[in-house]
Amino acid sequence: MTDPVSDSFDVRVLAALLDGEYAALRTRVKQLLIENADLITDSTEWPKEVYRERVRDVVLEAAKTGLTGSGFPVEYGGLDDFGGNVAAFETMALGDLSVLVKFGVQFGLFGGAIHQLGTKRHHDAYLADIASARLLGAFAMTETGHGSNVQALGTTARYDSATQEFVINTPDEASRKEYIGNAACHGEAAAVFAQLIVDGENHGVHALFVPLRRKGKTLPGVRIEDCGPKLGLNGVDNGRIWFDHVRVPRENLLNRYADVSPEGAYSSSIENPDRRFFTMLGTLVQGRVCVGGGGIQATKVALTIATRYADARRQFGVPGKPEVLLLDYGQHQRRLLPLIARTYALHFGQERLARDFKEIFSDPDASERRRRALESRAAATKALGTWHATNAIQECREACGGAGYLAINRFAALKADTDVFTTFEGDNTILLQLVGKGRLTDLRDEFGSLDGVAVARFVGRQAIETLAEKTIARAVIERVRDAARGHDEAEPGGDLLDHDYQLAMLRTREERTTSSVARRLKGGMDAGGDPAEVFSRCQHHLLAAAAAHGERIVFEAFLTKVQAMPEGPERDVMSQVASLHALSEIERDRAWWLERGRLSTERAKSITRAVDMLCRDLRRVAVPLVDAFGVPDELLPELLP
Amino acid sequence: MTDPVSDSFDVRVLAALLDGEYAALRTRVKQLLIENADLITDSTEWPKEVYRERVRDVVLEAAKTGLTGSGFPVEYGGLDDFGGNVAAFETMALGDLSVLVKFGVQFGLFGGAIHQLGTKRHHDAYLADIASARLLGAFAMTETGHGSNVQALGTTARYDSATQEFVINTPDEASRKEYIGNAACHGEAAAVFAQLIVDGENHGVHALFVPLRRKGKTLPGVRIEDCGPKLGLNGVDNGRIWFDHVRVPRENLLNRYADVSPEGAYSSSIENPDRRFFTMLGTLVQGRVCVGGGGIQATKVALTIATRYADARRQFGVPGKPEVLLLDYGQHQRRLLPLIARTYALHFGQERLARDFKEIFSDPDASERRRRALESRAAATKALGTWHATNAIQECREACGGAGYLAINRFAALKADTDVFTTFEGDNTILLQLVGKGRLTDLRDEFGSLDGVAVARFVGRQAIETLAEKTIARAVIERVRDAARGHDEAEPGGDLLDHDYQLAMLRTREERTTSSVARRLKGGMDAGGDPAEVFSRCQHHLLAAAAAHGERIVFEAFLTKVQAMPEGPERDVMSQVASLHALSEIERDRAWWLERGRLSTERAKSITRAVDMLCRDLRRVAVPLVDAFGVPDELLPELLP
Repeated sequence: MTDPVSDSFDVRVLAALLDGEYAALRTRVKQLLIENADLITDSTEWPKEVYRERVRDVVLEAAKTGLTGSGFPVEYGGLDDFGGNVAAFETMALGDLSVLVKFGVQFGLFGGAIHQLGTKRHHDAYLADIASARLLGAFAMTETGHGSNVQALGTTARYDSATQEFVINTPDEASRKEYIGNAACHGEAAAVFAQLIVDGENHGVHALFVPLRRKGKTLPGVRIEDCGPKLGLNGVDNGRIWFDHVRVPRENLLNRYADVSPEGAYSSSIENPDRRFFTMLGTLVQGRVCVGGGGIQATKVALTIATRYADARRQFGVPGKPEVLLLDYGQHQRRLLPLIARTYALHFGQERLARDFKEIFSDPDASERRRRALESRAAATKALGTWHATNAIQECREACGGAGYLAINRFAALKADTDVFTTFEGDNTILLQLVGKGRLTDLRDEFGSLDGVAVARFVGRQAIETLAEKTIARAVIERVRDAARGHDEAEPGGDLLDHDYQLAMLRTREERTTSSVARRLKGGMDAGGDPAEVFSRCQHHLLAAAAAHGERIVFEAFLTKVQAMPEGPERDVMSQVASLHALSEIERDRAWWLERGRLSTERAKSITRAVDMLCRDLRRVAVPLVDAFGVPDELLPELLP
Repeated sequence: MTDPVSDSFDVRVLAALLDGEYAALRTRVKQLLIENADLITDSTEWPKEVYRERVRDVVLEAAKTGLTGSGFPVEYGGLDDFGGNVAAFETMALGDLSVLVKFGVQFGLFGGAIHQLGTKRHHDAYLADIASARLLGAFAMTETGHGSNVQALGTTARYDSATQEFVINTPDEASRKEYIGNAACHGEAAAVFAQLIVDGENHGVHALFVPLRRKGKTLPGVRIEDCGPKLGLNGVDNGRIWFDHVRVPRENLLNRYADVSPEGAYSSSIENPDRRFFTMLGTLVQGRVCVGGGGIQATKVALTIATRYADARRQFGVPGKPEVLLLDYGQHQRRLLPLIARTYALHFGQERLARDFKEIFSDPDASERRRRALESRAAATKALGTWHATNAIQECREACGGAGYLAINRFAALKADTDVFTTFEGDNTILLQLVGKGRLTDLRDEFGSLDGVAVARFVGRQAIETLAEKTIARAVIERVRDAARGHDEAEPGGDLLDHDYQLAMLRTREERTTSSVARRLKGGMDAGGDPAEVFSRCQHHLLAAAAAHGERIVFEAFLTKVQAMPEGPERDVMSQVASLHALSEIERDRAWWLERGRLSTERAKSITRAVDMLCRDLRRVAVPLVDAFGVPDELLPELLP
């Protein structure tokens, strides 16, 4: 079915391919991690206070070596290079993840908010200090009562024209700021998200620069409480914040998109409040881009450990002979190799996302359409990448048996620390919902809010036909019509290992699931259903459509990369890895194609056989494949005594 | 399709059904847990030493109140009631899981080994002290180099007839005892598993009583090292043990199945060394029975928290109205309700297992066949129950968002502590392999060892026809023949909610996967394949067959229970829960039936619709369903401020 994989491929070629354009920066970050490898080996035994101080110290050290400010403008110590930001962050994920998250809070979230939502006065005042970590800060968005639904935050910033100040207030317990990194100990200021109220009118959520501490002492009106021990990331000082009528100058409003005049006149370059809100939120997409990448990198660490272990650990076998290597068992190959393949796929999906992010954020004239597409790609990649991290790290832990349970072997921290990646920077379910809705209409402005009821209403109100005026929606409709006419029902042809076949299969699922949700929503509304109920019933399918979209764009990015490689053994092996990834995904969900007559039962079984075969073939290069991930030996445990 | 669930069912009826015959004992254990609830709320902040001492104290307290010795003979302070042992252990799993594991090590593993492998002299000397926790001990089986393959342990016990002593020795690093609970601090003795060598001849692995400490001081020749921080269960003092020619009296051999005379003559009531080894191991099945039950109970805690949270937490909705409860979202119902249903199923599967265990261990004349069947059921139930715990607790954590990440809300410990349940007391993959092989031949004696090569050889050597002489194997063959003749190919008829239909579906998969593996193995061997290679290629399918068997026996146990209930709203709701469980499992793996023509594409889609509908219907009783799990409020966090 395929040529055997050549053993002679050069790991360095793959490593260079994975490192991409920021290879030098990645090497510098790895050096920092190696110098601070004690965080990996010892931090579980440190009291929380010691751990937090060490984590802060590494962040300060990173700032000193200039690894932290790539994305900031040159005049504030940065490089005006958003891609470098993402690459540095991702590489940090090979080490202690509390450092990663503290780093992300400081330079990405806090710094990013000042940079993206503020204007020159804020940049001049703060960015250089943020890039150098002289000013540590927090990103105070989430509240106890509102995590996903940010538009409904309870904190208020009421303008007092008499003193030309905003009064920041926490009206109730549900509105306290929650899980805020850098808040419990080190943050001296925060970007605080609050309902902006001017002259009694609520203009929706805006961000303000609010000082929290001076010389380590909490400022009057600010109350901060430690969130207490967490499942992981205990080197990060998460806290809760209450504001009791805290006053900040009018100028502290981060006023890139909206401002309040001294006299109390509200103005904004974006009329529609929903559009304004989502535009502001959209500028913060970097967090999502980074977290997904971090999850993928952490997965590489776990897979490197588990694969090397499986290639050294022996158990059972023929009496009188050496026991059999774990990796020579078919089931063990089945457990690890598809995860390795998927990690490659997600790596290249993430690389594509980071490139888009860099291009669009470097281009002040980037269209709103491109920005929306970026946000959708970021949401899908983040959801797939972080769920993969949770699943793959768990599988790796189990594949190392008891050894996997000892903290020294890293799975303890990898599992615990990445666990929240599926939740923060956007709960994965909510993110996929966002992707799904974007797919349905690509016109988020028309029903900007994230809630499903609005989508159901929207789709119900407009006949499907009127949607057809819109580019993407039209394509959806055409597919619905084709399907109704019985077109496009046949299975794509081609050899199973033909990437065009694999992509066509993923694309078919993507298109059909999306049009099917549109029909369901419309059908439910036409039948007079309650919009909330209609949405609830379709939600599972909407999420499946979004995931199908994510799978397609990730695989496409992988293929683009493989196809650009020069011919040779490295491309051959990457092509096999791509096939394993795609066929594993098709195998997992093969019922979907079977049910729709897009896959014959015989071909479905042959996909299972192809996955078996690819796992066997790639077993011989499993270790080189994880070696190419480039996790420094200094950051890896010695699993065998 | 079905009547709506009545809201009026009595939670207490379901709670009583779940508690079963040991309700009073469970209540006593819960009282102990409530009194020690500080372990749940505070232990993450304790230094390891403090945590370990508190855990030991609770174990001592449990011993004082008589909760620990149910399974021991009455003359040593027990109740001669193996069922009580399991019930007490399971209920302990609602609290801190370090206490659970320490409890299990002391009374189940250490005590169980002395009880089951020792004879009257050992019982007289130790059992009363073990039941009362005056003598704390360890179970020293696993070694660094051998976890699953216990037959290949490296530790030796060489008989010295000159002094009538055994000399216990650790020949190399791979043979040090590893992950041994109670070893690092508290164990004063251990049941040590070692290769018994008499006069130069190795008689295989046997167990001996070996003192480790006196008054807290390690004895000469014994070296113990702390395993260091673990992913979870840090209240348990796991350690490594090396023996340097440690001498113990001849009488310390736990000699129920084999003995060595003063002169050095080895004798055993079981001639075949493999059979002897597996018989000895079989007496220790209690550990597996307990761990599976513990995993299921811990899952109940997680589901109770997540379901109550979802019924109180609101997010998004129609402007001007209260936001929507998480549990009113279709996706959230999809996430939680099938897990609740599966937990019910596994609970009753576990109850059936515990009953078999009690009956067989209370009957000295229980046949070897029944004992083997018990071991197979224990292996399958443990694997399914502990994997379910890992999956379900993870889903519950994510379903609680950021709140799920705070240690105070219990998911941190639930995740970390249960994580190793899939590994210890038998790695789940190895256990399913054991089940699969048992299914293939039911004649383990003929190729006793656990390794797959022997199985492949065995199946290859004997023509499939000769297997047909054996009861179970014959049934397999008949099915192969039927399949070849095209019989039995049709999908079972009946309404989707008909339990007979659901069971028939699971049974079809069980039977077909088993016969298919037999054919693959035979085909591979007939073609002259290398046995190791043949086995490796079939392993994935063997494990699928084993899991299919496990699913059937669990569901059957659930149905038996439901069908024995008196008519009424409680039975109606249990019947729906059973349907949700079965149809979710069929939906998950529906490709299997589709590929074999056992399910039409239309019916497959209707199964998905039925799962949707059951989730919606059962949403109204989701909270009562978890309330019936009976987790005391004192052990649950307050998730909403």
